[in-house]
Amino acid sequence: MTTERIGYHAFRDRVMTADEAARLIADKETIATSGFGAGGTPKAVPRALAAMAKERHAQGEPFALRLFTGASTMTDVDGVLADADAVSFRMPYMSDPIMRKKINAGSITYVDTHLSRVASWARAGFFGKIDVAIIEVALVRADGGFVPTFAIGNAQTWLDLADRVIIEINTWHTPQIEGLHDIWNTTAPYAAATLARIATPGTRVGQAVLHVDPDKVAAVVFTHEAEQSITFRSDPDAAIIAGHILDFLQNEVARGRLPRALPPLQSGVGNIANAVMGGLANAPFENLTAYTEVIQDGMLDMLRSGRMTAISGAALYLSPACADFANTQMHSLRDRIVLRPQEVSNNPSVVRALNAIAMNAAIEVDIYGNVNSTRVAGSRVQNGIGGSGDFARSAMLSIFMTPSIAKNRDISSIVPMASHVDHISQDVQVVVTEQGLADLRGLGARDRARQIITHCAHPAYRPLLLDYMQRAERQPGGDTPHILSEALSWHQRLMDTGVMMPR
Amino acid sequence: MTTERIGYHAFRDRVMTADEAARLIADKETIATSGFGAGGTPKAVPRALAAMAKERHAQGEPFALRLFTGASTMTDVDGVLADADAVSFRMPYMSDPIMRKKINAGSITYVDTHLSRVASWARAGFFGKIDVAIIEVALVRADGGFVPTFAIGNAQTWLDLADRVIIEINTWHTPQIEGLHDIWNTTAPYAAATLARIATPGTRVGQAVLHVDPDKVAAVVFTHEAEQSITFRSDPDAAIIAGHILDFLQNEVARGRLPRALPPLQSGVGNIANAVMGGLANAPFENLTAYTEVIQDGMLDMLRSGRMTAISGAALYLSPACADFANTQMHSLRDRIVLRPQEVSNNPSVVRALNAIAMNAAIEVDIYGNVNSTRVAGSRVQNGIGGSGDFARSAMLSIFMTPSIAKNRDISSIVPMASHVDHISQDVQVVVTEQGLADLRGLGARDRARQIITHCAHPAYRPLLLDYMQRAERQPGGDTPHILSEALSWHQRLMDTGVMMPR
Repeated sequence: MTTERIGYHAFRDRVMTADEAARLIADKETIATSGFGAGGTPKAVPRALAAMAKERHAQGEPFALRLFTGASTMTDVDGVLADADAVSFRMPYMSDPIMRKKINAGSITYVDTHLSRVASWARAGFFGKIDVAIIEVALVRADGGFVPTFAIGNAQTWLDLADRVIIEINTWHTPQIEGLHDIWNTTAPYAAATLARIATPGTRVGQAVLHVDPDKVAAVVFTHEAEQSITFRSDPDAAIIAGHILDFLQNEVARGRLPRALPPLQSGVGNIANAVMGGLANAPFENLTAYTEVIQDGMLDMLRSGRMTAISGAALYLSPACADFANTQMHSLRDRIVLRPQEVSNNPSVVRALNAIAMNAAIEVDIYGNVNSTRVAGSRVQNGIGGSGDFARSAMLSIFMTPSIAKNRDISSIVPMASHVDHISQDVQVVVTEQGLADLRGLGARDRARQIITHCAHPAYRPLLLDYMQRAERQPGGDTPHILSEALSWHQRLMDTGVMMPR
Repeated sequence: MTTERIGYHAFRDRVMTADEAARLIADKETIATSGFGAGGTPKAVPRALAAMAKERHAQGEPFALRLFTGASTMTDVDGVLADADAVSFRMPYMSDPIMRKKINAGSITYVDTHLSRVASWARAGFFGKIDVAIIEVALVRADGGFVPTFAIGNAQTWLDLADRVIIEINTWHTPQIEGLHDIWNTTAPYAAATLARIATPGTRVGQAVLHVDPDKVAAVVFTHEAEQSITFRSDPDAAIIAGHILDFLQNEVARGRLPRALPPLQSGVGNIANAVMGGLANAPFENLTAYTEVIQDGMLDMLRSGRMTAISGAALYLSPACADFANTQMHSLRDRIVLRPQEVSNNPSVVRALNAIAMNAAIEVDIYGNVNSTRVAGSRVQNGIGGSGDFARSAMLSIFMTPSIAKNRDISSIVPMASHVDHISQDVQVVVTEQGLADLRGLGARDRARQIITHCAHPAYRPLLLDYMQRAERQPGGDTPHILSEALSWHQRLMDTGVMMPR
C-alpha cells in the first residue's frame, strides 16, 4: 500500500531500510537535507546515520559529516546527529541545543548564512561538493517529480548538485499536498523577470514538484511520522508586545500611511510572533496577506477565519492539532498557502517589491538601535541569523521585538552597546518590548537612543541607560557617543556576577 | 545666450539671482537638493543661503534648514551650509569635514540611511515634508523636462514631493548631456518588472529627463561652474591592494568560477577603488561592465580604452582633466554610460540579479569579518554608510578593502572587535589589505579569524591579534569567542595614548 506512493516505477526496486540507506554514506561526506525549520526534514535516515556513527565511534572509527540544510532541522537532523558527534560542519541555520553547544565548544564548524543566499552560493561552489541529498517527499509522481511535504528549503538545489539522492517518502503526509508548493529556482532564464511576477503573496510562478536525474536516486526509504511540532506558551509579555504593534499599525492606517489591508507581513518564529498574529485576528484589518518564512498556528488561524487571504512561506511549523488540521484539510488550504524554495520565500527582491512589513525577534537592542539576534555576550551562538537579514533590510518597515528583561531581571535586553550586531540601525525602524514601542523612523542617533530608553527599557534599567547615554554625550564627541570602557561592561558583569545590574 | 537653455518659455520670467532665490527659503524649512557625491549638486543657491544665514545670525535671528540630498555634496552644499551653521538636520550621506564635525558635536542631527532607500522612505513620509527642491540641470527642454548634469540622486522624488522648486541651470555642462540619464522611479506601475528589465548595466528603462509640475517652479538661477573634482593620489598601498584583488579575480576566472568578462563591478570611492580600476585596465579581462555608484577616472579610462563596454552609475566624480574630457566628449560617452536615480543605481534587486561583485572601503575589520565603514572608535561618524549596504549584501561577492594600518602604525585596521558594525560578517566574503587577501567564503568564524589575522593584519599587530584570539578561544566557549573586557581595549588605548599598540 505504500509503494503506490512511488509513481515512477524504476524507483520501486530501490526501496530499502533507513539503516541500509545510511550505509550508503561515508565518513567525511557532505549531506544536504530538505526542509526548513521543523518542516519537511528527513527523519529515518538521519536517525540511522546517528546510530551508525555511534557504532563506528564505539569501534574507534571516525564518522563525521558535513551537513547542509534549509534552516533549522530541530531534533530530526541536528539533534540526533549532533548528539552522535556525527557532524563536523554545519550550514546555514541551527537552533538545536545539542548542536549549539558543540558549535560553541568549537567542535563543529558553523557557517551562518542569510537563508536566501544559500542556494546561489552553493551553486557557485562556496561550500564545496555535495555528496548526498536526503529529501523528504509525500510521494513520487509517475513522471518522477517529487512532491515535498511541509517545507522545501533548498531541496531542488541539493538535488541538482548532489552526486546521489536518498528519498524519504513520509506517508503521514496526505497525497493531497501536491499543489501546495511553487518550485522554481533562480538559475532559470529570466529569473529576475520571474521573481518580479510575484506581485502578491499568492502568485505562483513555478511547478508543483521537484525534479531529479533518476539515475542519482540511490535509495527510497518509507517513513510514517508526524512533522515536529511546537507548543505555544501563553505569555503575557508576548500579548502586551503584540498589543503595542497592533496599536502602531492601526495608527499608521488611521494616518493614511498604510492601507487597511496592510502590506504583506513577515513574522519570525516563536511566542511573540504567534501572539502578534493572534492579535491581528481581532484587530480591524481586512484581507491580510503574508510573505513570510515559517507559518505558525496564528497565521493558519487567520487564514481559517478569512481574515488573511493568502500566505507565502517557506514552511509550516504548527502545533500537533493544527498540523493534523492542515494534513486533513490540505485540499482546501493549498489554494491559499504557497510554500516556496527559500531563495524565493526569502528573496530580498520580492520582499522589497511587496513593501513588506518585517517582524523579527531580538536577543538585545542597543541604545542606537543595533540589534543582536544571534550571539549571547558577543560569543555564544544561540541560533543563526536565518532569514531575518533577508527581510529586515528589504522590508518597507522592519520591526524588532523582545521582552525588555530576561532571567527575572538579571538581564536587560536594552544595552549600551550590542555585544554582537546582526541588524544595523538602518535596518531597524521600530523596536518593541512589553514596556512600549519606539518609532525610530527619521530620527538621528541620539533621538533614537532617547526613544528606545524611554519606551522600551525596563524601569529597573532605564536610569542606568540614561546615565550611560548622558555621560557618553559629554565625551569628546560623536554621532553615536559611546564610552568604550563601559560599553560592554553590562555583559561582562553578567558573566562575572550573573546579573547585568551593578551591585 | 543663456536663456536659450530654458526651452520651456514660461520659466523665462522666473530667472533671478541666487540671492533672490535664497530669500524664497525660510528658517526651519526642509530643502532637498539634486546630485550624488560631488556631481549634480546645486552650487549658487546653497552659497547664497549660507551668506544669508550668516547675515541673519549676525542680526541675532535664527536660520537653520533641514537638508536632504542624494549623497555627499562635498563643499558645494554641505561645506558652505555647515560652515554657516545653517543646517539643523541632515539626511542621508555626508563626508564633508565641517558637517562631520558639527554632527559629532551634536549640533546637527544626522540620519544615516541606505542610499537606495531614501526615495521610498521619503515618499512614505518617514522624513516629513519637503518645502523646496533645489535642482541643478544642464537645460530645460521645450516640453518642460529637466536634463540633469553629472548626477541625479533623488531629484525626481524631490520634485514630486516638494512644494516649491528652484532650478540652477549650470551652463558649464554641455547640452549634449541630454541622453546620458535614464530616469524612472519605483512608484511607476509594474516597478519590479521594469527593474527586472535591467539585465545588463547598459539597459535603459526610463526617460532622459526629470518631470515637474511647472507651477511649482519658483526660481531659475544661472550658474557656470565646473563640477567639484577629485585628485587621485599615487598610493603604493592602493596599488598593492589592487594587485591582490586582481590576482584573486584572475584565479577565480582560471578556476572557472567567474566568466572572463567578470560580472558587473561595483566600486567604492577613493584611491584604492581607483587603483583597482587602473589595475583592471592592464589585466586579462575583456568586455567588462560596471553597475556602480560613483564613476571615477579609472573607470572612465577603461571605457575609453575599450576594456569596459558599459557603465551604470549614480554619478560622475572625476579629476578636472577627466571632467573636461567627459564634458567635451559627452556625445560619444552617453551611449556607454547610464546615470540613474539612486534608487535604481543602488537597487539591491538589480545588484542581486546581475550577480555583481562589490568592492567597498572599510575603516576597520574585526577578526570575525565584521566591518566598520563609518564610525571611528564606535562614536565619531566619518561618513555615512552610503550605498555600501545596498551593494555588499546584494552582490554575489562582496570585497572590503583597507590598508592594514593607519597613522604610521598607530592604528591597526584589523581589530579584535569592530567598535561599530556596518557590514556583518555574512556580507563580507573577501577582506584585502596591502598585506594580503583573506577569502572567507564557506569558513566558520574561527577559520575566518585565522585567515584575516594571517593574511590581512600588519605584522606589528599580528601577534597581538593571534594572542587575543587564542585566549578568547580558551574562554568558556562561543562560536565567535571574545574577551569582552578586552574587545574594545585597543580603541580605548588609542584614545588614551594615541596608539593602539600597548606600551
